Amino acid sequence: MSTTIDQKQQRSIVAEPSAGPTQPSSSYALDPTRDPVLKIRAKAPFNAEPPPDLLLQSFVTPNELFFVRNHLPVPTAEDLVGYTLKISGLGLDQEVQFTLDELKTQFKHKTITVTIQCAGNRRSEMSRVKTVRGLVWGKTAISTAQWTGVLLADVLKSLGISEDNEVCPAHGLDDLSMNDSDSEAATTDRTDCVQCANVIKHVHLEALDTDPADGKHYGASIPISTTLDPRKDVLLAFAMNGESLPRDHGFPLRAIVPGTVGARNVKFLHRIVLSQHESPNFWQQKDYRGFPPNVDYKTENYLDYAGEAIQELPVQSAIMQPNDGATVVLQTSSDTSETLLPVEGYAWSGGGRSIVRVDVSIDGGHTWTTAKLHEAAKRQRYNRAWAWTPWTLEIRVPRDTKEVEVICKAVDSSYNVQPDTIAPIWNMRGMLNNAWNRVKVQLAE
Amino acid sequence: MSTTIDQKQQRSIVAEPSAGPTQPSSSYALDPTRDPVLKIRAKAPFNAEPPPDLLLQSFVTPNELFFVRNHLPVPTAEDLVGYTLKISGLGLDQEVQFTLDELKTQFKHKTITVTIQCAGNRRSEMSRVKTVRGLVWGKTAISTAQWTGVLLADVLKSLGISEDNEVCPAHGLDDLSMNDSDSEAATTDRTDCVQCANVIKHVHLEALDTDPADGKHYGASIPISTTLDPRKDVLLAFAMNGESLPRDHGFPLRAIVPGTVGARNVKFLHRIVLSQHESPNFWQQKDYRGFPPNVDYKTENYLDYAGEAIQELPVQSAIMQPNDGATVVLQTSSDTSETLLPVEGYAWSGGGRSIVRVDVSIDGGHTWTTAKLHEAAKRQRYNRAWAWTPWTLEIRVPRDTKEVEVICKAVDSSYNVQPDTIAPIWNMRGMLNNAWNRVKVQLAE
Repeated sequence: MSTTIDQKQQRSIVAEPSAGPTQPSSSYALDPTRDPVLKIRAKAPFNAEPPPDLLLQSFVTPNELFFVRNHLPVPTAEDLVGYTLKISGLGLDQEVQFTLDELKTQFKHKTITVTIQCAGNRRSEMSRVKTVRGLVWGKTAISTAQWTGVLLADVLKSLGISEDNEVCPAHGLDDLSMNDSDSEAATTDRTDCVQCANVIKHVHLEALDTDPADGKHYGASIPISTTLDPRKDVLLAFAMNGESLPRDHGFPLRAIVPGTVGARNVKFLHRIVLSQHESPNFWQQKDYRGFPPNVDYKTENYLDYAGEAIQELPVQSAIMQPNDGATVVLQTSSDTSETLLPVEGYAWSGGGRSIVRVDVSIDGGHTWTTAKLHEAAKRQRYNRAWAWTPWTLEIRVPRDTKEVEVICKAVDSSYNVQPDTIAPIWNMRGMLNNAWNRVKVQLAE
Repeated sequence: MSTTIDQKQQRSIVAEPSAGPTQPSSSYALDPTRDPVLKIRAKAPFNAEPPPDLLLQSFVTPNELFFVRNHLPVPTAEDLVGYTLKISGLGLDQEVQFTLDELKTQFKHKTITVTIQCAGNRRSEMSRVKTVRGLVWGKTAISTAQWTGVLLADVLKSLGISEDNEVCPAHGLDDLSMNDSDSEAATTDRTDCVQCANVIKHVHLEALDTDPADGKHYGASIPISTTLDPRKDVLLAFAMNGESLPRDHGFPLRAIVPGTVGARNVKFLHRIVLSQHESPNFWQQKDYRGFPPNVDYKTENYLDYAGEAIQELPVQSAIMQPNDGATVVLQTSSDTSETLLPVEGYAWSGGGRSIVRVDVSIDGGHTWTTAKLHEAAKRQRYNRAWAWTPWTLEIRVPRDTKEVEVICKAVDSSYNVQPDTIAPIWNMRGMLNNAWNRVKVQLAE
């Protein structure tokens, strides 16, 4: 699984040659050192995930085990000289700058426990259906930390940006009448509205990490409604599990966008732009979008089929113990016809939706047993459950069973469920794999 | 499909005999008259859905075609004498009352287009897997209307209730540390906190419709966070598609809780109670909850397995044309090896999530074609897409095909998808069926 892949894949791009040359490995010479226990998926840029048997040893992932998803070389001390966070765009007369100290002293600190998942988590399973492009992630491109920072909404409010900036004064909140008959007219009316043109719809998050080949930075955008919603808890984070942000996780400042795909939790954040449009950044426009299952790299003009930018992620779960392919020795007593196989895993959903149930099957999904959910996870607030839900189960296995396939699936608080199989959600970028997770295990006594 | 079912089923209860006697049909003598085109699923209480071929004739469902889900007799003029909306509970010193005129004159009016779906929509498909209890709904227990009313959040704010009432002043917003080690301690600390005891968590919505047998009313509750969130648009509605609310749809006042299961959109609303706990009402406590697939009426103490109360619904789609079992005559031209079969349907998701894609297959789900989504639906705001997304497609069928099974599935803006099959989401109440929808069609030339 730790196959070395070529640099074109490493950059995880959709639009291939046009994306420019890839970086020489020397650009990565000043990257931080990493824990050798991490499973490396790419060396330059560095991408790695923790082994499944270590992921759930604690509710909060230790910093050194947290999965690493880098797109470019990690910024160095030299890159950070004179660092400020710059904010500009619609609703602001001029660019505003904050030093880290200003952010830390002028705004209230907040600590929240947030799980971050890569859009490509579980890609290796999807590629078994049909080849996809991208890093060959296992199922631990997901981790959880306590992030400390200041609310981006508070910072924007201090600059006079509020929910009013999302709404056209001339047209109000409702974009359009939903009547068939007048919807077209309503659209036409607005093309000339000066006030509509000043409505903020997206927040660009620009990073400091730079492609040595073309000088371009990593970047992304999130909806203004997510950003300003006090219930969405979007943070400018400077600490991770009580420590200053590690370099691999965004030092000195990182956006934490709870419930949202990792790609929008921009690391090394140095500029925020308020805009009517999504970020023009390569990774916002040409990557991290959902393609339909009927489109692949042979499809003419395949980029035309890119779906909406991935923001909130769907319900997910996976089995961490036992490992796929493992041989498990079960304890048996003479007075029962069954043995107990210990199973554990994680479940999580986007948008703050909590996990209400995890089901496990060892007969291909015909019958299911409900797992026990982690108590702390269950106590998260309605629609603000940003952290995952670890779960455990000792599942009954008939004695003398030699091999079982263990399957898990989760249900979130909107009663969304994981799909049964991967093929119908297959996409050429290998993203968003949230089908039932399966592991095969040999049993011995 | 319009099978008459016994009264025990009609009340759609989980806990059977203990729920008390059912009402004599005479209690329904003063119910309103209904459009004869509706497909009746129960006569007393009256439950009916529109025929699939009429549902999508317009984006907004005409009042007389809107599906009807009654639990009890419709309140009469006599029941409504001296009507007021009463509000009481935590955070209020005493009960407050509003006449309809006071609500209409003291608060700003708002009109929003909201799709409402019954938790039992598509139950008849689920019952084919294994018998379930409840009304035998087809796939049109879902409809869309423009609702006019006042924001419940505005009314509560006028009484001094705000987001502060959701938060304990002593403990802040974060319920619990997510650290394994101290989470138990944190829980223990709070049992004696007087301020915690005054935190509002749920809003009870009590109705006027009454069980003649025991005098009990219909009721439900929704989370306070949904209620007070200005982005959730919870309405006290007095008009439907520009007309005073029809009696079957909640005259004189109805809660509209966008993105949330029909059961919480309480009709004939006459009392609101702010509370730490969910509504004690039968339909909140013992119905409209998700059961796991491994529990049925033979399971001992089956009510112990009732999951979280259903609030936001999962992503859904269904085919409205062609009808299941129909024979369709296709136009063919001599110069092509394929014919085009017109297909149309709806898609919708809870929580304000919009529909980003609908896929259609005629080969069992091996290959998919993307449908065209309704333009007005696509223009809904991010995470405030309360209305459905009608879709159409002319799907290519090889010539001389005699029969096809058409399948649809939708993807919402959180990239949640519909599950492949019904059995793994089967539950004894036949709720929440959102598996791929399938229709079989005979083709003729």
